[in-house]
Amino acid sequence: MPSDAVLILGGGPAGLEAARGVADLGSRAILVEPRDRLGGMPDAAQYAALTHGMRPAEEAIGEMIAAVQGTANVELRLSSTLTGFKGRAGDFTATLAGPTGAQDVPAGAVIVATGFQHFDPGRETQMYGYYEYDDVITLTDAERMLKSGKFVKPSNGQAPERVCFIQCVGSRDRQIGNEYCSKVCCGISSKQAIEVKQLVPTAKVFIFYIDMRMYGYWENELYWPAQEKYKVQYIRGIVTEVLKKGDRLLIRGEDTTMGRPMEVLMDIVVLAVGMEPSAGTRAVAKLLGVHQNKYGFIEVPHGSLDPVATSVPGIFVAGAAAGPADLNDSISTAGAAAMKAVAALRRLVKA
Amino acid sequence: MPSDAVLILGGGPAGLEAARGVADLGSRAILVEPRDRLGGMPDAAQYAALTHGMRPAEEAIGEMIAAVQGTANVELRLSSTLTGFKGRAGDFTATLAGPTGAQDVPAGAVIVATGFQHFDPGRETQMYGYYEYDDVITLTDAERMLKSGKFVKPSNGQAPERVCFIQCVGSRDRQIGNEYCSKVCCGISSKQAIEVKQLVPTAKVFIFYIDMRMYGYWENELYWPAQEKYKVQYIRGIVTEVLKKGDRLLIRGEDTTMGRPMEVLMDIVVLAVGMEPSAGTRAVAKLLGVHQNKYGFIEVPHGSLDPVATSVPGIFVAGAAAGPADLNDSISTAGAAAMKAVAALRRLVKA
Repeated sequence: MPSDAVLILGGGPAGLEAARGVADLGSRAILVEPRDRLGGMPDAAQYAALTHGMRPAEEAIGEMIAAVQGTANVELRLSSTLTGFKGRAGDFTATLAGPTGAQDVPAGAVIVATGFQHFDPGRETQMYGYYEYDDVITLTDAERMLKSGKFVKPSNGQAPERVCFIQCVGSRDRQIGNEYCSKVCCGISSKQAIEVKQLVPTAKVFIFYIDMRMYGYWENELYWPAQEKYKVQYIRGIVTEVLKKGDRLLIRGEDTTMGRPMEVLMDIVVLAVGMEPSAGTRAVAKLLGVHQNKYGFIEVPHGSLDPVATSVPGIFVAGAAAGPADLNDSISTAGAAAMKAVAALRRLVKA
Repeated sequence: MPSDAVLILGGGPAGLEAARGVADLGSRAILVEPRDRLGGMPDAAQYAALTHGMRPAEEAIGEMIAAVQGTANVELRLSSTLTGFKGRAGDFTATLAGPTGAQDVPAGAVIVATGFQHFDPGRETQMYGYYEYDDVITLTDAERMLKSGKFVKPSNGQAPERVCFIQCVGSRDRQIGNEYCSKVCCGISSKQAIEVKQLVPTAKVFIFYIDMRMYGYWENELYWPAQEKYKVQYIRGIVTEVLKKGDRLLIRGEDTTMGRPMEVLMDIVVLAVGMEPSAGTRAVAKLLGVHQNKYGFIEVPHGSLDPVATSVPGIFVAGAAAGPADLNDSISTAGAAAMKAVAALRRLVKA
């Protein structure tokens, strides 16, 4: 018998928006999240402000959480994971393991919103010294400090005089198999550079980049103000080495605009780590039987013409589970996936 | 009395996808298009292949058109424009002027999908000589030639030996008031560079750019192959002047990577023109009373957290009417807007 429920895997921004959309359309959503709370990466990694608009992440995501918590049509299953899956569009059965044991749950359609994980800069990019030096941090580490309202050198708690961001750590890098661009790191680095200057106005802030990918409004909302109002210095260059020098960091590389080698002292080095498929995305893809692309993201066989379809009818994808996505992308694809999933249920009920 | 219809303004990709979505959800869509045919910019400007995936635009858009034409729940109004508008969410009345005169049409919600227009390079960027020299063309002109399967010098019909693309014409340009990045031109230029090489394998193809903004998969699907398989030469540089020299074009500027002036002969110069709000977007915004941002695009007051809401409840926006968008963005936001519009109708009927 066809089920009227949409199973949504993942309680981050995409999953929350999809659940709200499905419920708003009058269908039932079952929202499954392995953590014991909703909010996904912005909550788990304690993001400070979101782009565009620089709204505090906690407040914005809190509103999204409140919206699904207050909706009778959304059934929340926290601390739960998918462990089995069978059936076909309209008549799937998902096995969910949760606090009260395993349970078979019927669903007519599925939305995968299992998101991404941040690239681990300790793996193949060890020349940056992430696991050696306390003052080499990632965008995620920086986000946590910025949220706490205190941006200091982790090694000694002092305010930094010089801070730099290194772009494309784990992205656009064929040697490690991640040729793709992670889409958001240029924007997030620019946002954080502004936040650093707001907290430590005396700090000099540098961004070393290959191409600044500030598409659309990111250009005028972040890139222009970062340069003009906050005096962030953008240097087209490649950093090849980070070394310890006294209690500071020496970065070595090449300024590719000036065409000369560079050696600069920094107090904090922020690695702009890219996006990879989350462990949840990889695991769920296998259980659902949806194709993954060579990077492990969920494959979208019709590309731009149907950005939320997967290789399996009745299973849809939203957000960064399908590849690098900004918040705008995640919310848009979640809305589109909610529409497609409910439309698919309608077709099956009519048929 | 509340109306159960969603009025969709614009018959391009976003409007087509929104109409199909609304109909798939069981509501009624009224699709209004000023031209006498559907398909929007990809049809009007005769696009060759679409990204991602390089599918012929005519075929892909043809499928989208067929989908709405075959749906009883979509009422098509071609050769029609909005000339008046009043009411509130759930109970709007739109005045449509069409082939049979003016008519008042009730609608419960509205989706604005009125798209963009290409920047006119004859206006403030006349140093490129678009209106002086036949062999200076735009991405749009190039698209038409590529679709016809013949890429030649417009001045004499001969195959070009040297072709270059100049990025950011009408974008990232504060002097003309378009500070924003148009998001798609780097990708479209790279796509066209590949298509030029496929048609004229002996041609040397150059792309002059500030930053190559090939976010996400555009990087590996277009940028790597353009460089490696098709030997397109990317030069970080600024072109300040295009002059006629014999039957060729002399471009002058600066190679900013090498830090030296450049003077190069070309046979065809392609200006990568950016996106501006279409005349339809500007006109419709005024009639509907939705706020526009300072560039004239429809304002999205909640930004990334609600990318399809406008300043007026019950009126939603999809695609490039809200700002530079690629096809993926347009289809995603159209799906999300369809969801939101139908959800809004449901709420009003229940209330």
